[in-house]
Amino acid sequence: MTKVKDIGEQGLLAKLQSFCPPEIIGDDAAVLETAPGASLVVTTDVLVDGVHFSDATTSPEDAGWRAAAANLSDLAAMGASPLGITVGLGLPGDLNVSWVERLYQGMTECLQKYNTPIVGGDVVRSPTATISITAFGQVEPQRIIRRSAAKVGMAIVVTGVHGASHMGLQLLLHPQLGHNLSPAEKTAFIKAHQRPQPRLDVLPILWEIFTPHSQLPVAGMDSSDGLADAVLQICRASNVGAVIDRQKILFPPTFTNWLKPEQAIEYTLYGGEDFELVLCLPPTQANTLVQQLSQGAAIIGTITSDSQVLLRDQNEKIPDQVLSLSQGFQHFS
Amino acid sequence: MTKVKDIGEQGLLAKLQSFCPPEIIGDDAAVLETAPGASLVVTTDVLVDGVHFSDATTSPEDAGWRAAAANLSDLAAMGASPLGITVGLGLPGDLNVSWVERLYQGMTECLQKYNTPIVGGDVVRSPTATISITAFGQVEPQRIIRRSAAKVGMAIVVTGVHGASHMGLQLLLHPQLGHNLSPAEKTAFIKAHQRPQPRLDVLPILWEIFTPHSQLPVAGMDSSDGLADAVLQICRASNVGAVIDRQKILFPPTFTNWLKPEQAIEYTLYGGEDFELVLCLPPTQANTLVQQLSQGAAIIGTITSDSQVLLRDQNEKIPDQVLSLSQGFQHFS
Repeated sequence: MTKVKDIGEQGLLAKLQSFCPPEIIGDDAAVLETAPGASLVVTTDVLVDGVHFSDATTSPEDAGWRAAAANLSDLAAMGASPLGITVGLGLPGDLNVSWVERLYQGMTECLQKYNTPIVGGDVVRSPTATISITAFGQVEPQRIIRRSAAKVGMAIVVTGVHGASHMGLQLLLHPQLGHNLSPAEKTAFIKAHQRPQPRLDVLPILWEIFTPHSQLPVAGMDSSDGLADAVLQICRASNVGAVIDRQKILFPPTFTNWLKPEQAIEYTLYGGEDFELVLCLPPTQANTLVQQLSQGAAIIGTITSDSQVLLRDQNEKIPDQVLSLSQGFQHFS
Repeated sequence: MTKVKDIGEQGLLAKLQSFCPPEIIGDDAAVLETAPGASLVVTTDVLVDGVHFSDATTSPEDAGWRAAAANLSDLAAMGASPLGITVGLGLPGDLNVSWVERLYQGMTECLQKYNTPIVGGDVVRSPTATISITAFGQVEPQRIIRRSAAKVGMAIVVTGVHGASHMGLQLLLHPQLGHNLSPAEKTAFIKAHQRPQPRLDVLPILWEIFTPHSQLPVAGMDSSDGLADAVLQICRASNVGAVIDRQKILFPPTFTNWLKPEQAIEYTLYGGEDFELVLCLPPTQANTLVQQLSQGAAIIGTITSDSQVLLRDQNEKIPDQVLSLSQGFQHFS
């Protein structure tokens, strides 16, 4: 009999999609038509003790913040404003009540920044501490941001710097690594990992740039699984390719203090969990967007009619590299 | 340090409610205002292997059906029509893939009866098989059914017979108990336990009865935790009491073949998991509703200005009994 471990969680998820309507799945979140002029956006995440969080690297407050932020980021990636979340907990009887209260403290600290209430939940006993979050948002149908809407010639925008979260995780796991970083630099990387910011603030800027448009000409997703993964997923869903300009890939300046250039770009492309948005839009509006966003936002490349995503050195010193999903950080390997 | 087991899952849930907006919680599901004229209803359940389901008594198909039915029943209890569900799974690597497919088969069999899609999900590895379901539905605000809307003089209606699910569970756990039941009777009880039917069919009947009303004068909840629990919860939320007529409490006729009368009434009041609706509404409309529902629906009592829920023998042979929550079937004891 085939076991779950034989096909992996992603393989199983692919099999289970045959039980879902095909038009609804395949993006950061599901979109459902409710009232005319309003779409409901829903996303869900399950987090397991020892797999997705651990007292070794994550306080309960940070586990709570990260869980809330990841779900809000999925809503932002669809262009949706949050309505609320539900929280289901499976908890061992021996767990301290204060751990659970600290988890909720962290969740609500993140949620309050975005006026998002916890609207319900369930608590049951389980041998394994498990946090299951479902987030709801709403969006006008013409403002939905889909992965599949990228068009040849669109500019690829990142809303901020990538790689800092992965660096923060490395510093938490191997504190000796940070010997040539200042305490403030270390703290900044660790905070990027522990308290990521969902980019819901980008949405009103986008809406204003495209005010006269009936349909937002924007494709995108969040970079929770890495910048390379986001570009590749968008290209796959849109049936296009991309060229990423190696010189435009920004990483934190201190990266080069202790990472070789190839390592720095690997952290940046494949590190994951930065929860920025990767958006494709017409070049003029892409420029306007980058100008209005804070430091770290940049146009990093262009959508092409190619079938591949290429990392290109405009100085032609390094040959083109083909980016692939299998190099990326795999959540479930 | 206080542990989860010291205060119990219900005690913890009460503590965590301080993190939620008070106006949203305290019913079978949360209600959120979305578009004008439409409210979003959200409910979530976590089910854990060995606690809420077990291969000993439940096939994966039945576990899936029951999980879907319980969530749809929570929507029905709020008067809401289902829009979709999300399913989050935590799964051990050694679990057979076919177990998961059979679980989904059971879920979709139940959901398809009510045109409800699975719109998303997450699959992660976990040492403990865990199923987390969030269901969402919509309802016109004036049709929301709340626990807190019961008024003195309203009739208490049950939409069907209670106790059959508990009998089915007993027969699964102790097959020797069923020696004086026919195979067909046994099968019917077991099916009541394994394939409960959420009473979404009751809603259009209610809407038609109350067509001219702007606000549905109906209070209610589902009887997932037992008939007595439902009446007590409604009375507590509405700050009223009730008299239940002992002669009106229906139970399956074969109950008396092998249960003493007091046991039969205990199964009926406290058995749980029948997933019927317990509704309070004005007597005239209550009569109309019962006539339009199938066999087993009945008016079982009246809402009073008392602070207690009394079980009364109209023949005055048995003294009044005060019903209490603590006698009920406790999910988390």
